[in-house]
Amino acid sequence: MNKEVKIFDSFLRDGAQARNVSFSIEDKIKILMALDNLGVAYVEAGNPGSNSKDKEFFERVINLKLKNTKLAAFGSTRRKEVDVEEDENVQQLLSAGTNTIVIFGKSWDFHVTDVIQTSLDENVAMIQDTVRFFKNKGKEVIYDAEHFFDGYKSNKGYALRTLQAAKDGGADCLVLCDTNGGSFPDDIYDVTKLVFDKFQIEIGIHCHNDTGMAEANSLMAVKAGATHVQGTFIGIGERCGNANLATIIANLQLKKNYRCIPKEQMAHLTETARYVAEITNMRLNPGAPYVGTNAFAHKGGMHIDGVAKASNSFEHISPELVGNHRTFLMSEVAGKNAILKMLKKIDPSITKTSKEAKELINILKEMEHDGYQFEAAETSFEMLVRKHLGKYKPFFKVLYYRIIEEDPESSKELSASAMIKIRVDGQEEMTASEGNGPVNALDKALRKAIEVFYPNLKEMKLIDYKVRVIDSGASASKVRVLIESTDMKANWTTVGVSTNIIEASMLALMDSIEYKLLKDEEEAGNC
Amino acid sequence: MNKEVKIFDSFLRDGAQARNVSFSIEDKIKILMALDNLGVAYVEAGNPGSNSKDKEFFERVINLKLKNTKLAAFGSTRRKEVDVEEDENVQQLLSAGTNTIVIFGKSWDFHVTDVIQTSLDENVAMIQDTVRFFKNKGKEVIYDAEHFFDGYKSNKGYALRTLQAAKDGGADCLVLCDTNGGSFPDDIYDVTKLVFDKFQIEIGIHCHNDTGMAEANSLMAVKAGATHVQGTFIGIGERCGNANLATIIANLQLKKNYRCIPKEQMAHLTETARYVAEITNMRLNPGAPYVGTNAFAHKGGMHIDGVAKASNSFEHISPELVGNHRTFLMSEVAGKNAILKMLKKIDPSITKTSKEAKELINILKEMEHDGYQFEAAETSFEMLVRKHLGKYKPFFKVLYYRIIEEDPESSKELSASAMIKIRVDGQEEMTASEGNGPVNALDKALRKAIEVFYPNLKEMKLIDYKVRVIDSGASASKVRVLIESTDMKANWTTVGVSTNIIEASMLALMDSIEYKLLKDEEEAGNC
Repeated sequence: MNKEVKIFDSFLRDGAQARNVSFSIEDKIKILMALDNLGVAYVEAGNPGSNSKDKEFFERVINLKLKNTKLAAFGSTRRKEVDVEEDENVQQLLSAGTNTIVIFGKSWDFHVTDVIQTSLDENVAMIQDTVRFFKNKGKEVIYDAEHFFDGYKSNKGYALRTLQAAKDGGADCLVLCDTNGGSFPDDIYDVTKLVFDKFQIEIGIHCHNDTGMAEANSLMAVKAGATHVQGTFIGIGERCGNANLATIIANLQLKKNYRCIPKEQMAHLTETARYVAEITNMRLNPGAPYVGTNAFAHKGGMHIDGVAKASNSFEHISPELVGNHRTFLMSEVAGKNAILKMLKKIDPSITKTSKEAKELINILKEMEHDGYQFEAAETSFEMLVRKHLGKYKPFFKVLYYRIIEEDPESSKELSASAMIKIRVDGQEEMTASEGNGPVNALDKALRKAIEVFYPNLKEMKLIDYKVRVIDSGASASKVRVLIESTDMKANWTTVGVSTNIIEASMLALMDSIEYKLLKDEEEAGNC
Repeated sequence: MNKEVKIFDSFLRDGAQARNVSFSIEDKIKILMALDNLGVAYVEAGNPGSNSKDKEFFERVINLKLKNTKLAAFGSTRRKEVDVEEDENVQQLLSAGTNTIVIFGKSWDFHVTDVIQTSLDENVAMIQDTVRFFKNKGKEVIYDAEHFFDGYKSNKGYALRTLQAAKDGGADCLVLCDTNGGSFPDDIYDVTKLVFDKFQIEIGIHCHNDTGMAEANSLMAVKAGATHVQGTFIGIGERCGNANLATIIANLQLKKNYRCIPKEQMAHLTETARYVAEITNMRLNPGAPYVGTNAFAHKGGMHIDGVAKASNSFEHISPELVGNHRTFLMSEVAGKNAILKMLKKIDPSITKTSKEAKELINILKEMEHDGYQFEAAETSFEMLVRKHLGKYKPFFKVLYYRIIEEDPESSKELSASAMIKIRVDGQEEMTASEGNGPVNALDKALRKAIEVFYPNLKEMKLIDYKVRVIDSGASASKVRVLIESTDMKANWTTVGVSTNIIEASMLALMDSIEYKLLKDEEEAGNC
């Protein structure tokens, strides 16, 4: 039996500190569910007292049945010179209702005296009081020793004394934080080893990437005895980010014989990384170890030749182990299981060896080469499968559209107008709309025309629209558009790719509308 | 005096193996010059025999006077069972004319027998013959031991024997390569130390990032005695990339007391990273250590508060050391020197304390916040300064434009048409053009109208057009457009940012045209 390392994901807390990252409550729930499915031991969210969004998040998820993950709330020690029972922040943290509480406190003498401006003794009391308060409430308490490595360098005795305070308060785990991310693997190893030997309780590690060492530092801490690793799943976080847990999980479990997530989940690592990146509207670094789209992409002639002769000649692991795939081999079966699952949903008679399965694998490969990604847009994938199987009757046909864009200066707010002509059952409808930009105008005109025939489309609205420029294999740069829609009963996401942003948007939009119409028709048929 | 570590940059060789990277000869020369300016010890390019573009590159640069950098050509050992003098590849490598030659050979027994399919003895002879051939020609020879760490694991004795062959052939440096990128810092340290102690010549390290350890591995090798570090400047390379030299230089020089580049160049690290990223049309990872736009961006309220009290409370180094800057402080002087330099170019009477200097700093800050970056678009910055100083008379005014976009299916090739009306000296000109997409149509129409008044504009053509979606501080997603233009006498690059891709393109296009007209007028005036 391999030794366990508990993976603690702070995507929803430290990850939310990343620039330009802002989660809706729906986003947060999706990410929590994805990490639970993957089998991460802990997911940390914020403090329900810090803002109303966090409060609503905890209210909504506290009764969710999670399969693998413990939800943790995060907050600071009590304020200086305040009774812990009367500290508002502490009470709010308790109100999250989680069984696991993370308390962070100061280990660096300079931070105590210069930042929070209190005495070294009071800081020690703040740590011990707060940990004990939550232990007395029956909680599991994880203690985050902020700036531990810098504190240790500055005043070794005091840094260790703060850990002792947390241990004396009853903490279940002491987490050593490299908050400024400036440490190096050899130092991390030495200090973690000393702490591990001295305290004899569970030790955790929390690294930031300011010197590019976050994952190496985490691994060296594990080598020194840490069995709890904090980070964020694709490395997002303030400044240069937190330790990337996707990389750490794969390194520990595939190469160092530790157990981090259930064995059978390892093949979902790549899919999970891409999914959470899409939800966050972040570009997943294509060169990300293990899970990046380029992680097993071979371009050099000699490398391709070598890999063709023996895959380990230029690959350190098999890409299948993490659910990724080699890129140059067009015969490689990408997403075969996903395709089969979808095929069976639509036509249960289809098997792995059916002609349709093979055809769809090829279509999917081509589309991925063109820049499509279906990880976060299953609806578009479903529509594709339905069309290919002939299990789809078109609800409408767009005969043509035209968009007129004026320079924003002369036209002020609504700079674009779109006209569109569609046909439904032999009947044509032409209409027009103005919009704030060409895509908005086109969206409005398209719906207006279709609603004449399908009034139920009025229930549907677009709730998110994400665009990014992608580097596909082709020479022209393309954009990928993701549209999320809702009809208050369900949410679905569709995708379109083109060199032309308007065409990409139109493709995603049409998939979304067709899905709504199909869904309503099937529900009506089932009644 | 600090110990020197030679930085060896393979941007133009291993970096060119990255997916979607394709350098023109102009791009390569720009990157070489940028790395020379920074003070990198070596820049490696390919083999002039491998393709005609590499051949032309060496012909063009071989007589360039480089200040700091040695140019190296890269090739393999002789083929099996061929006399080294008669090996075509070896002869082509010699024809590059560089004083430094990099030879790579096999250290992994499995690669010898299964990939190149020869005997272990013949491989050793191939290495020694080839190194000796170039030494006899008076070259500096760097020997890259491909797959050294995997080879060492598989057959320690044989891996060391291949190094001995290179040393016996006269190699100046033995470079240990983690070609598959699967190694970890502790193993790298142990093996490098053993090699260093045994061979007593210069040892180099060449790491890939497949486990996220490339920079940590490089540092541990230096700790073990390596004094030559290979990588690519912003980490580009096949699969997960090469060791990121920007990170390694900063770590070694600022934190480990080694000398990698001239001390005074350290403050140009960030600028160089952004410049080479733009030339490569790659997005520089915003979270890249030291040089990323987010590397010193503070978002958390407590962090901002802490940094305001003492910058080292949440920063591991001062951003100024690497030419980067802290982001939340709006009073922070971004690019002050660059602004002053440009101001002095246009109006030498202006000083650091002038009102204009302060105003422009504020304007620049606002524009950067809006998503502008001028590192690779100095021309747009110059136009901005000229306009602000009143040193600019408009050549033309766009009165309005309209673009009509039809759905690509019904309109086939040229789906967009643009009409435009401009005014020059009280005279109006209206015209229209078709194009392959809205931007292309607008570009054609704009030039057509302006050329009526300024026929010299016909000399100018657009040679590159790059778009990327950026996350600015604002909520809507924006695009940044970079346009490179030439009139065969000079090349210049301009930038435009907007939520609307058409407007962003138009801004960059107008800057580019105005610059051409201004340049021609000034040249005429000087005659």
